Amino acid sequence: MCGLVGSVAAGVWLQRDITLGSRERGFHLVTGEVAEALPEVEGVQTGLLHLFIRHTSASLTLNENASPDVRADFESFFDDAVSEDAPYWTHTMEGSDDMPAHIKASLLGPSLSLPVTSGRLALGTWQGIYLCEHRDRGGERSLLATLWGEG
Amino acid sequence: MCGLVGSVAAGVWLQRDITLGSRERGFHLVTGEVAEALPEVEGVQTGLLHLFIRHTSASLTLNENASPDVRADFESFFDDAVSEDAPYWTHTMEGSDDMPAHIKASLLGPSLSLPVTSGRLALGTWQGIYLCEHRDRGGERSLLATLWGEG
Amino acid sequence: MCGLVGSVAAGVWLQRDITLGSRERGFHLVTGEVAEALPEVEGVQTGLLHLFIRHTSASLTLNENASPDVRADFESFFDDAVSEDAPYWTHTMEGSDDMPAHIKASLLGPSLSLPVTSGRLALGTWQGIYLCEHRDRGGERSLLATLWGEG
Repeated sequence: MCGLVGSVAAGVWLQRDITLGSRERGFHLVTGEVAEALPEVEGVQTGLLHLFIRHTSASLTLNENASPDVRADFESFFDDAVSEDAPYWTHTMEGSDDMPAHIKASLLGPSLSLPVTSGRLALGTWQGIYLCEHRDRGGERSLLATLWGEG
Repeated sequence: MCGLVGSVAAGVWLQRDITLGSRERGFHLVTGEVAEALPEVEGVQTGLLHLFIRHTSASLTLNENASPDVRADFESFFDDAVSEDAPYWTHTMEGSDDMPAHIKASLLGPSLSLPVTSGRLALGTWQGIYLCEHRDRGGERSLLATLWGEG
Repeated sequence: MCGLVGSVAAGVWLQRDITLGSRERGFHLVTGEVAEALPEVEGVQTGLLHLFIRHTSASLTLNENASPDVRADFESFFDDAVSEDAPYWTHTMEGSDDMPAHIKASLLGPSLSLPVTSGRLALGTWQGIYLCEHRDRGGERSLLATLWGEG
């Protein structure tokens, strides 16, 4: 065995599917649920966690983790900014909530990259992970989590 | 040689420039073109692919990969949401499509981070990579791809 | 010592807090300030730099690094698109600029992932890092930078 075994063996790579239960249309705080599904974060000294949603009508974002009012206002804003009644929609076969859901998903994005420091997600005090459900009946949502770093 | 040679040597880092040919203003599906330029993805068991567009008037997003209607509706939405005729634009010297292109580029973002699992991009069934061309005559677009992970 | 010591030892992981001084509401170019805080980028041949803002009312984006007009127009656009006077805001206790700041922060996003090539950030010619300050008096802003790659 050579002298670098310790540091070499300490490299971490982990991937895991996380299924989020069906939620109503809106913005939902899922920080705790995601953290509980990834106890291995504790073993990473310096690294990153990538969360990826494998859908085109739901998204992930970080925002204020305390007030439910903020999440309600997110829904109001995005419903107003991306109207179901816009005259230019042509992709309407899957319901009036479908095309706005695709747009909202790209405005907010399909992934988050979160730093890991000393075994914890290094989020700011007020930052929480939002699942953004843009469909009326989106059903379960599948995340793929990838964790890598130094153990 | 020490016993860890196998796992150590299996660490992968690759960077490659990918030039996307000139396309008209709008949203274009480029999943196949990007995948073909990166055959080394097949050699990665667990990792990530970072795609980065080196421009400020074009962007990358993930969205529905089946219906051309969806991509046409993206163009309609973003043209409506970021108007060329807004009274507040002051940066107008490079044409009426220029400042809206900068805004759209930041709304959608310059990069995608995509998980790699067992030698394949772990996209959802309906997820495709869009090149979002926000200029009337944007010309060729340069991507820098970075792939890293466990072999 | 085994023959792979050189390449093994060359793996780089670095995390550093960067404090950005208080700035007025608007879009501010911080590329130079961020680069100066991270001289270790020079030691990375192939890698990534992740910049993460630990707040929910400020954000990071990449855009045009030459004309101050562009940054002024960003402020005009986002103030118009996310109105302080929208009738649907319910989270109003922290001031009329607060809820719009949360929305803008999620539209633009809390992080940037930037490729590193041959010891330099591989940005396009016109790409600069913007600190997007969405509050009237946001104060100092805390970034967490994570750098990893091959030395």
